[in-house]
Amino acid sequence: MGAMRTLYWSDGHIVAIDQTKLPGGLVEITIESVEELIIAIQRLAIRGAPALGVAGALGAALAVRGDPARHDQDIAALRAARPTAVNLAWGVDRALTRLADGPDAVLAEALAVLTEDGVHNRALGQRGADWLADLVDGPVAVQTHCNAGGLACSEWGTALGVVCSLHDRGRLRHVYVDETRPLLQGARLTAWELAHLGIPHTLVVDAAGPTVLARGLADVVVVGADRIAANGDVINKIGTYPLALAAARAGVPFLVAAPESTIDLSTPSGDKVELEVRDGAELLSFGGTRTAPNGTQALNVAFDVTPADLVTAIVTEERIIRPAAGERPA
Amino acid sequence: MGAMRTLYWSDGHIVAIDQTKLPGGLVEITIESVEELIIAIQRLAIRGAPALGVAGALGAALAVRGDPARHDQDIAALRAARPTAVNLAWGVDRALTRLADGPDAVLAEALAVLTEDGVHNRALGQRGADWLADLVDGPVAVQTHCNAGGLACSEWGTALGVVCSLHDRGRLRHVYVDETRPLLQGARLTAWELAHLGIPHTLVVDAAGPTVLARGLADVVVVGADRIAANGDVINKIGTYPLALAAARAGVPFLVAAPESTIDLSTPSGDKVELEVRDGAELLSFGGTRTAPNGTQALNVAFDVTPADLVTAIVTEERIIRPAAGERPA
Repeated sequence: MGAMRTLYWSDGHIVAIDQTKLPGGLVEITIESVEELIIAIQRLAIRGAPALGVAGALGAALAVRGDPARHDQDIAALRAARPTAVNLAWGVDRALTRLADGPDAVLAEALAVLTEDGVHNRALGQRGADWLADLVDGPVAVQTHCNAGGLACSEWGTALGVVCSLHDRGRLRHVYVDETRPLLQGARLTAWELAHLGIPHTLVVDAAGPTVLARGLADVVVVGADRIAANGDVINKIGTYPLALAAARAGVPFLVAAPESTIDLSTPSGDKVELEVRDGAELLSFGGTRTAPNGTQALNVAFDVTPADLVTAIVTEERIIRPAAGERPA
Repeated sequence: MGAMRTLYWSDGHIVAIDQTKLPGGLVEITIESVEELIIAIQRLAIRGAPALGVAGALGAALAVRGDPARHDQDIAALRAARPTAVNLAWGVDRALTRLADGPDAVLAEALAVLTEDGVHNRALGQRGADWLADLVDGPVAVQTHCNAGGLACSEWGTALGVVCSLHDRGRLRHVYVDETRPLLQGARLTAWELAHLGIPHTLVVDAAGPTVLARGLADVVVVGADRIAANGDVINKIGTYPLALAAARAGVPFLVAAPESTIDLSTPSGDKVELEVRDGAELLSFGGTRTAPNGTQALNVAFDVTPADLVTAIVTEERIIRPAAGERPA
């Protein structure tokens, strides 16, 4: 995304692009307290696993600059603002490793997390592009899901970082983007980023991704992750698992692009992870108009688990792990 | 759906529920010409494979009562109004078998198609329920996709016919309904029918259906079909294939409920079928509001192919076929 920043620190506050306003408008919000940050995270103004890591770190800096009497409860509430992505609590904890050195040290550590996010994502984008460029002859067509782009990070994406690195090398042919119901992060955010970058792309409904693969339109699936378990299971936006099933059936490689901070060795496998269930209203209505009958209930599960045997490779800023070949993150 | 009729003949015209108006309102439209019928079919006011068979037959009756000079072109246009569901052309051809006997004979044959649709669907609903009641202990939880209910037929559904038969026996526990993007036939039509019938149900995004199966929430998948190839491949609404992949992985039976008229022995396998590609605008906007960036294109493929090896059983008004066990429709 070049010089555009999704999330940064300015004059004692957090400034963030309000992702709920895209693609209609590019609006920044200023966040002055942990309470405001939690609201922004829960309504998905700030979202994406790496961005949540940065937000957690910057939020910890806000907390320790605030009322000492609220410090512990603010930190606990921030760590738990969303349950599935491990990066949020990781970012909080990382910044607080400097707590004994005072608020300025916590802020310095949070800013280090922010800087490293960009560095790590560029590194993993290059490594993923190297891997793909070796694997596929000629220009590569990619299928992706949700948004693991610059908007999901502080400035440079994970899955879209791989895509951008391929594009920079002249090795990208096309990107198929799942719209990603119910909140349309693919249609609203990924398509917007790709349009901004001049990358050719086509939107499909989530249910069509497996057919894109079955019909040979894409050479590879590249997605991000919200948590990676010790056994290589990948937890990511709902709809990732069916793409992995279809990729395995079609013989198409399935690549997960995520920073090391997404790997959670304390989670032995995906079936132990709490999958966030959000308000059913997100899928029962659209733009204020009810689409389902009154009285119909919804189960709005926001994430799914892709078993390790379906994951061809995980690329991080440090390494490539091949779960389908039996490799484990640890 | 009890006494409610989706599609019928009245006083020289076709009368149909306008399915684009549900669940907001129950509106009937009167169709007086083949041109009007084609428009109603293409904008999905009338949809669902069995209903398209009835519409084709009644449309042939309209055509032969109209201007003789337009007869051939009307018939050709009607047969081709939608390319994927084989029932439409089948219904036209079936009614026209009586062409030599005059317009009243064609109408009589069309009305026979209408009557048989109800009889066949009740028979296949009972047979499917018998099969499921034997297969699953206790009350059954079903995952379905799109709408293969009374609205997809003249009055009694195929997939939902199986569900209703289970419900009548006190053997139904719950129905999970995929919303079915982009036109939300699951959210708008199936949920409406189930609410009308007092059947407990939960709506999920299409991408969540595989997780419903992976987490053990449903005992069986039951869907309709738009065409069944000679080798047992099933062509149905986009999103059926990922459910079949997930069902196979979870060890959950995958049942297709469709009349014999859906079986097309002239189609050797699913990869030979033309999958209708509809206007991308259906997924780029919602209720007139653009959701994707200007300039983003969409591929709106409306159907997918479920390979025979993933289809546990096909139930028709005459028989059960087990493609995954090597049985073929012919």
